[in-house]
Amino acid sequence: MTEEQDHGRRKATHGSRIDAYVDRYAARATGMVASEIRALFAVASRPEVVSLAGGMPYVTALPLDTVGELVADLVAQRGTVALQYGSGQGDPHLREQICEVMRLEGIEAGADDVVVTVGSQQALDLITRIFIDPGDVVLAEGPSYVGALGTFAAYQASVVHVTMDDQGLVPEALAETIESVERSGRRIKFLYTVPSFQNPAGVTLSPARRSQVMEVCRRADVLVVEDNPYGLLGFDGDPMRALRADDPDGVVYLGSFSKTLAPGFRVGWALAPHAVRDKLVLAMESAVLSHSSFAQLAVGQYLATQPWEEQIKSFRELYRERRDAMLGSLEALMPPGCAWTRPAGGFFVWMTLPERLDSKAILPRAVAERVAFVPGTGFYADGSGARNMRLSYCYPEPDRIREGVRRLAGVVQQELRLRDTFGTGSMPPHGGVDTPGPDLA
Amino acid sequence: MTEEQDHGRRKATHGSRIDAYVDRYAARATGMVASEIRALFAVASRPEVVSLAGGMPYVTALPLDTVGELVADLVAQRGTVALQYGSGQGDPHLREQICEVMRLEGIEAGADDVVVTVGSQQALDLITRIFIDPGDVVLAEGPSYVGALGTFAAYQASVVHVTMDDQGLVPEALAETIESVERSGRRIKFLYTVPSFQNPAGVTLSPARRSQVMEVCRRADVLVVEDNPYGLLGFDGDPMRALRADDPDGVVYLGSFSKTLAPGFRVGWALAPHAVRDKLVLAMESAVLSHSSFAQLAVGQYLATQPWEEQIKSFRELYRERRDAMLGSLEALMPPGCAWTRPAGGFFVWMTLPERLDSKAILPRAVAERVAFVPGTGFYADGSGARNMRLSYCYPEPDRIREGVRRLAGVVQQELRLRDTFGTGSMPPHGGVDTPGPDLA
Repeated sequence: MTEEQDHGRRKATHGSRIDAYVDRYAARATGMVASEIRALFAVASRPEVVSLAGGMPYVTALPLDTVGELVADLVAQRGTVALQYGSGQGDPHLREQICEVMRLEGIEAGADDVVVTVGSQQALDLITRIFIDPGDVVLAEGPSYVGALGTFAAYQASVVHVTMDDQGLVPEALAETIESVERSGRRIKFLYTVPSFQNPAGVTLSPARRSQVMEVCRRADVLVVEDNPYGLLGFDGDPMRALRADDPDGVVYLGSFSKTLAPGFRVGWALAPHAVRDKLVLAMESAVLSHSSFAQLAVGQYLATQPWEEQIKSFRELYRERRDAMLGSLEALMPPGCAWTRPAGGFFVWMTLPERLDSKAILPRAVAERVAFVPGTGFYADGSGARNMRLSYCYPEPDRIREGVRRLAGVVQQELRLRDTFGTGSMPPHGGVDTPGPDLA
Repeated sequence: MTEEQDHGRRKATHGSRIDAYVDRYAARATGMVASEIRALFAVASRPEVVSLAGGMPYVTALPLDTVGELVADLVAQRGTVALQYGSGQGDPHLREQICEVMRLEGIEAGADDVVVTVGSQQALDLITRIFIDPGDVVLAEGPSYVGALGTFAAYQASVVHVTMDDQGLVPEALAETIESVERSGRRIKFLYTVPSFQNPAGVTLSPARRSQVMEVCRRADVLVVEDNPYGLLGFDGDPMRALRADDPDGVVYLGSFSKTLAPGFRVGWALAPHAVRDKLVLAMESAVLSHSSFAQLAVGQYLATQPWEEQIKSFRELYRERRDAMLGSLEALMPPGCAWTRPAGGFFVWMTLPERLDSKAILPRAVAERVAFVPGTGFYADGSGARNMRLSYCYPEPDRIREGVRRLAGVVQQELRLRDTFGTGSMPPHGGVDTPGPDLA
């Protein structure tokens, strides 16, 4: 090829609207596809729509003037630190404070084993980065957090779901799944679990199950990644004891201030065994050098000067009232054949629709009736979840939640009438399978 | 194996101090090793040491009280946005402001093609993530930014250096390198370049070379990743025209507020062709969901309310004075046989030692004399750079710079005497090769 021909070829591809780079992306980029939540965010942000879709905490409840003042003091007094590069591992004082927070869940740990991350999402990304080669298996609850599934896909992990019920992961199912994956010759790198007030299912691993799950993992030598953003947002009694509290060597614990303070700081963390911690710090540095000192020190200043445990308590009361509003309305309004979980904390209810209804097909009709939710299939890597939806009660006020459930119940009733009259209901036209998630209710 | 044996095995590994996870990491994790800069940061932070090692901007020059007040106003007035999750692509208003900043370098772009990242380091990580399969080739200046080399290694890229001289990348060398890599059957995914006031070399791609380099890349259909953190910190005249200004489809441009405002916000960005931008947003979401709204809006508020161009101008004057202090001292004090670059902007001078001296071997002796620098080998992926060192003038005040150079000159002189007396000098005991970087002076 002459230089002129070569040049001409490139001009032709680059001048057009198609993706000139399509044949150059890494193999992992093919796993990067827009999630089902994406389109929703645009739709659900219209004010007339009651969004039961998002997972946004109700930051309006924070004392904004006070937070503003403490940040101003921080910059004026410690600005040359807050505005400068920090260490890859994170601010040392904040790491001490994080250890205090974790103590509420029975965790005894040193600041030296904590890595501050850009939300716990980044902790998840870095853990996956250091452990996963393409094709490696990650075990995860079915359903599981959609953001985790996205990260696992980006690293070309193979996700194998483990059955859960209303007490969380089923230990026997976990043992069987591990055995079956190992028999197939594939390599399990870790179990990813959200044991408390799970996203999206809203269920919690019971105390009895906690030790059983850990015992299964110890015997099979499977590392546990415990993602615990909602642990302090339980509605009844003291926080549960974290899995990490009883197994410092077998658990990487992920925490976050996104739900107990505010997500806008993007301050989360990983607590990991020494050797893993070392790798995480190196991965952190190559990913972003260091997290924002400004954001980290703001969180530290908040924890040092404000009654943060009281604030969490008031968040708990606020979310309990909303949970009650949602469960009461579901009970009163949803037609027979619908089932849902009864969360004891956190942000989410997981609903299962009657047979032959499909939540993704229902979504546009729901939005037309001014209510939004997240269809269940996004929370599975294997196409399950067609009959499920995640309903969040964290952001709308109780009256709006009741109105949203009323609208949604109307849509489901209409779908049921269609199904019973024409035998079709909302089954997806593209021939999707009618696979419900397991019965969690 | 019985369950008991199995359990016992795990206990044995987990109870010990060795890395129980060593056989489970991903292949990429083997490329994650501590950089040469790491140990330095600890050493150079002692107050008696003049650090010519770090790349920390002089944030003390910022009006801290003013920044504190504007952040307080932001949280009080727009706290429910600043403390909430944001979009993966970044705050829309900040992206508009970023386009204004880029206009100073001749770039006409829409906010829709900008992705806000956790420093430009994360932009580099995401670009590498979407383009690099293990073994793919990245072309980079020799020497190149150590943080970029770390990211490329983390994705198992193969870095091939391209010769540069005091005018920056040599276009003929670039064409030859591309040809030779392609002849070897390997795939070039992009050219990574810091065209203005390069880190670590301090040289700038001349205007004539800019169009030649772009022409070589267009003909060979090689994507250019233009990393430009120092572009507005030139000491003479107007900012250079960015490579991106003349080729919107062939360049991904990376920018940062770390040097023109402050690194503590960790706000950088990528400007990319549409299709690449889409992939970057998805990669961003799977990596961290979104950057801190708090940090993004703080930067936006600063740009909206403060005379930011004046601030950059005063940074330029401050750094020019320090550059002059360093060049003057080097000229006055360094023994014959030393050569160095004369940066027209940015933070760094690149020094080449006389033959048979080794900068890494000299470092501990320099630190004993209370001066620190970064040895040259960290800036190469191929073991070059033994006779080089990076000297930064961004952080210490002019008198400290002069004192640091005086101490360093003493160390180099002593090394030269050793070399001339015993014939050994500071050659590395481990048999490293005496490969200098190319002559950039």
